[in-house]
Amino acid sequence: MPELMVRLGARSYPVRIEWGSLDSDLTACVESHLPRGNGALLTDTHVGPLYAESVSKGIEGTGRKVHVLTVTAGEASKSFEVLTRVWGDMLRAGLDRGSFLVALGGGVVGDLGGFVAATYMRGIPFLMIPTSLLAQVDSSVGGKVAVNHPLCKNLVGVFAQPRAVLVDPSLLKTLPPGEFVSGMAEAVKVAVALDGGLFDAIESGAGAIRKLDPDTVTALIHRALERKAGVVALDEKEETGERTLLNFGHTVGHALEATGGFGAIRHGEAVAVGMSFAARVAQRNAGFPPASTARLEGLLRALDLPFRLPSWADPEALIGAMRPDKKNLRGALRLVLPLRIGSAEPARDVPEETIREVLEEMKPKG
Amino acid sequence: MPELMVRLGARSYPVRIEWGSLDSDLTACVESHLPRGNGALLTDTHVGPLYAESVSKGIEGTGRKVHVLTVTAGEASKSFEVLTRVWGDMLRAGLDRGSFLVALGGGVVGDLGGFVAATYMRGIPFLMIPTSLLAQVDSSVGGKVAVNHPLCKNLVGVFAQPRAVLVDPSLLKTLPPGEFVSGMAEAVKVAVALDGGLFDAIESGAGAIRKLDPDTVTALIHRALERKAGVVALDEKEETGERTLLNFGHTVGHALEATGGFGAIRHGEAVAVGMSFAARVAQRNAGFPPASTARLEGLLRALDLPFRLPSWADPEALIGAMRPDKKNLRGALRLVLPLRIGSAEPARDVPEETIREVLEEMKPKG
Repeated sequence: MPELMVRLGARSYPVRIEWGSLDSDLTACVESHLPRGNGALLTDTHVGPLYAESVSKGIEGTGRKVHVLTVTAGEASKSFEVLTRVWGDMLRAGLDRGSFLVALGGGVVGDLGGFVAATYMRGIPFLMIPTSLLAQVDSSVGGKVAVNHPLCKNLVGVFAQPRAVLVDPSLLKTLPPGEFVSGMAEAVKVAVALDGGLFDAIESGAGAIRKLDPDTVTALIHRALERKAGVVALDEKEETGERTLLNFGHTVGHALEATGGFGAIRHGEAVAVGMSFAARVAQRNAGFPPASTARLEGLLRALDLPFRLPSWADPEALIGAMRPDKKNLRGALRLVLPLRIGSAEPARDVPEETIREVLEEMKPKG
Repeated sequence: MPELMVRLGARSYPVRIEWGSLDSDLTACVESHLPRGNGALLTDTHVGPLYAESVSKGIEGTGRKVHVLTVTAGEASKSFEVLTRVWGDMLRAGLDRGSFLVALGGGVVGDLGGFVAATYMRGIPFLMIPTSLLAQVDSSVGGKVAVNHPLCKNLVGVFAQPRAVLVDPSLLKTLPPGEFVSGMAEAVKVAVALDGGLFDAIESGAGAIRKLDPDTVTALIHRALERKAGVVALDEKEETGERTLLNFGHTVGHALEATGGFGAIRHGEAVAVGMSFAARVAQRNAGFPPASTARLEGLLRALDLPFRLPSWADPEALIGAMRPDKKNLRGALRLVLPLRIGSAEPARDVPEETIREVLEEMKPKG
């Protein structure tokens, strides 16, 4: 079954996951899910040269006109300056409330494109075509879109669901290896927090995954997104708690990204270290078996993901950066801790002392 | 019945309209509708000195801490620069996803505050306390919030419904007379487009309204908001057409504001001229009775509102500015035309020639 549904009542949408779907399904997807007006195709300087022309042709084949807008690849494009330019370009292109947007790229383009679409003239429909593994396996589904404030990553955003998501794992052939590895961290996150069977599948399929075997990779993305869609359907706006579990590994992950400065560490690598951290805290506080920590770290190693702190990381700075995390309600430090592989829960009130000890223990062996 | 409900399923909210409600109802409103965290009180340099302290005390009396954020009064504050500062101030104040925002001011503060609340950490709850007649009678209800792009007013926004709206018409005592007059235009708009009885009431009560008679003004606001709430409940996101009727007078209105430059004409004055324009077009194209145009212009005159073009207005520039109006789907020029006092409908394809003739006819006599 190549198609999943994210079930959100009137905002439900399909996620089509198929090797080669950009060729086989784009036209039908545009016809079914986007208005008949003209639109914007937002992409970046890495992805645009590879795929923008064929996507653009595919959309124009349906009789819609599309304006290609290209931003510089990288996190720095999630800025107010770039937003202002993109909104202005859309206005100059004559796009209006009957228009649409297609976001063709990785996490940055998805975040920026989703936010632009959600706010342009109070919202126009959008389609996600994720091109990185991180976006294909996680961020293109669920409607979390945001841009960066000079003081804080992802401070400004909304929940905005796309009309459809088109996932073509064959696009991963052109993804730089480091980005592929980084994306695997989000798949491992879903597995540890929600799905022990997925963890087994990643463990046993690690070799095939790294060789980009079509069936194995497609099945992996499908299963991870199926889990994510289930959680999002229960808790669209991170209000009832289910969705919080998807933040597993992200508290320390975000602190690493913030203290390292944007670009010092990939998001997935930071999440990998964050998962290892959470496992070690859970070992002390929540009865997580030490053998499971070893198993998690073994898988991270097999996937070329880090599970120790980078040498530049400073435990005290990390603790400081964890405090203003926007997932901490009313100042209480909140971590998602695994109970066993496949199950996790939010934990309040982890003693700062425990956090410090675990961070010290995770310093690189020198 | 001082309380109205805006019926939007899970996003329904009450609008409390009562003379003196800022004293009598603020505490209960905060207790019932805002989370127990800390919050921001957004206001401007006109309203803040008059009311921020008492509102702040009222909120803090419930055990919540509140940070007062003051922006310069006027449309120029609906900018990305001011947004960036406000989001940053909220972050520095330690506000998080469990926090809230209270927007205390007129249309600008409501637009800015609603947009800030809707986008800060992907959305925090907010309360509207409108202090201008325009905001009390119209913009505080319905969830349309937006900020300005350098190229286009209100280009960037979302539909974001507040948790509650607290309307205290006694605050109008401190409103500058020109602002009061301007706000009346939106009440007349609702009357002409939706409610002939309200039009009668404004006509017969014009004297009492201008003297700010508590019962007359409170009843006027209640009735106008009741109509607006009904339309918003049918068409929250301006998709099915009902809500379009609230744009009566706004096509030429926005063109006047845009060609005059921000500040050359008050929003309500521009809408008043726009209503007169639409009536005159409807007289030619939609059978609107000439006597009703005369009656509308008579009421505008009685309220000190303009119904001719300002001397600086240029018909050709206005026609040009009407084209990129975001209410024109796919480039077709779209006006809302009255059928009779109390009823209107969207009209497509009004000939440009008719528009030009009517604009020429509306040039100031001189």
